Amino acid sequence: MNLILLSPDDIENDRLARVRDPRRLAHLREVHRASPGDILTLGIEGGRLGRGELLALDDDEALFDVAALDQAPPPALPVHLVLALPRPRMLARTLEHVTALGVKRITLLNTRRVEKSYWQSPELGEEKIHRHLVLGLEQARDTRLPEVVLAKGFRPFVEERLPDLLAERRGLVAHPGMPGDCPRGLDEPVLLLVGPEGGFIPWEVERLLTAGCEGIHLGPRILRVETAVTALLARLF
Amino acid sequence: MNLILLSPDDIENDRLARVRDPRRLAHLREVHRASPGDILTLGIEGGRLGRGELLALDDDEALFDVAALDQAPPPALPVHLVLALPRPRMLARTLEHVTALGVKRITLLNTRRVEKSYWQSPELGEEKIHRHLVLGLEQARDTRLPEVVLAKGFRPFVEERLPDLLAERRGLVAHPGMPGDCPRGLDEPVLLLVGPEGGFIPWEVERLLTAGCEGIHLGPRILRVETAVTALLARLF
Repeated sequence: MNLILLSPDDIENDRLARVRDPRRLAHLREVHRASPGDILTLGIEGGRLGRGELLALDDDEALFDVAALDQAPPPALPVHLVLALPRPRMLARTLEHVTALGVKRITLLNTRRVEKSYWQSPELGEEKIHRHLVLGLEQARDTRLPEVVLAKGFRPFVEERLPDLLAERRGLVAHPGMPGDCPRGLDEPVLLLVGPEGGFIPWEVERLLTAGCEGIHLGPRILRVETAVTALLARLF
Repeated sequence: MNLILLSPDDIENDRLARVRDPRRLAHLREVHRASPGDILTLGIEGGRLGRGELLALDDDEALFDVAALDQAPPPALPVHLVLALPRPRMLARTLEHVTALGVKRITLLNTRRVEKSYWQSPELGEEKIHRHLVLGLEQARDTRLPEVVLAKGFRPFVEERLPDLLAERRGLVAHPGMPGDCPRGLDEPVLLLVGPEGGFIPWEVERLLTAGCEGIHLGPRILRVETAVTALLARLF
């Protein structure tokens, strides 16, 4: 937690924020070993960040002076990430990685090789997802939460949503064996599609290419989804 | 496991390999649902890989025909990674990521902000480290194990080993706030140094720069070690 992220509910007024949840209180005590008077890095969800004083800390709450928060959060990546739903533990870690890297739009997509049971996982609950996004923001000192959308049908996604998404973005399908090497250092908006373990099936790749996406690869190595997504984002931007 | 990695002990002769360990046998049965006659991707530790037939499978062993393995493993990254020893779970995952990405030389380094207890972790045992390297190779379909060296003193490393390492490599210290943007698409040998959570201390950075390393950064976001290392390798090469 390189940033204490304050939710709108924590904000009392222009000067004062009050934190009551056990996770952040425990972190303040055990990791920061914080005591009143300490100056910490604070950010307001969706807003500014900076340094602020811990005014008081007891078993039930921490009070912060938020008057001096005047920095903008770091720039976002110009990418909408469409990720075939990974298995639950991989999803959790991948959400943290990509949030820390600055992704702000994430669509979790069903494809043929996504195991159906993954869609029943408690990790897909709104609160669980929110928690991983917050961990990513706290890690990277960012305040703007990504938006996560579930797309439980591949065909409806391709037919109804993909054309709009591609209207203003360069579509890239990352898939082993595609002809194009992953481009480097882009500064245009990108729609990046990443398949499940085992990959997209050929019909899915065909549909995405026909819709206007380019096929790209990261080389001959087969990478786990979390490694591949981080590597793709780092190389693309 | 995208590759069944055969150790030298598994090889009976030019044609036959015999696998007896419970982990790979369980994987063959439960994930591959393999039965005799199946053609699987096999590789010999340190050597060639390709497709080979499962000749027999019972509770105690699997027999493979390895006569037709004729592909070279994928190219390695031209990098020696020097990583401040991360906490044990992070170490395990990072070893898997970087092995899958093709790193072949890893030095785990002590620095001021590495917690002393990390050096006592069972994760540093030779067998544990070997297991994570094997998982990385199996993931990426590679056969060449990385070499992992422990450097328990920062000063001896800098004084005794660093000059030789830098004699034939471009030294890059990844550290937030350094002046240089991380270079892209290098094809020269690199010594990449990555600090612990909390970073190198200023004195350590100074020593590394004085020794001839360049300071580079990945932008304003603070990343976890495993995310940062993957992002650095993907951007550098």
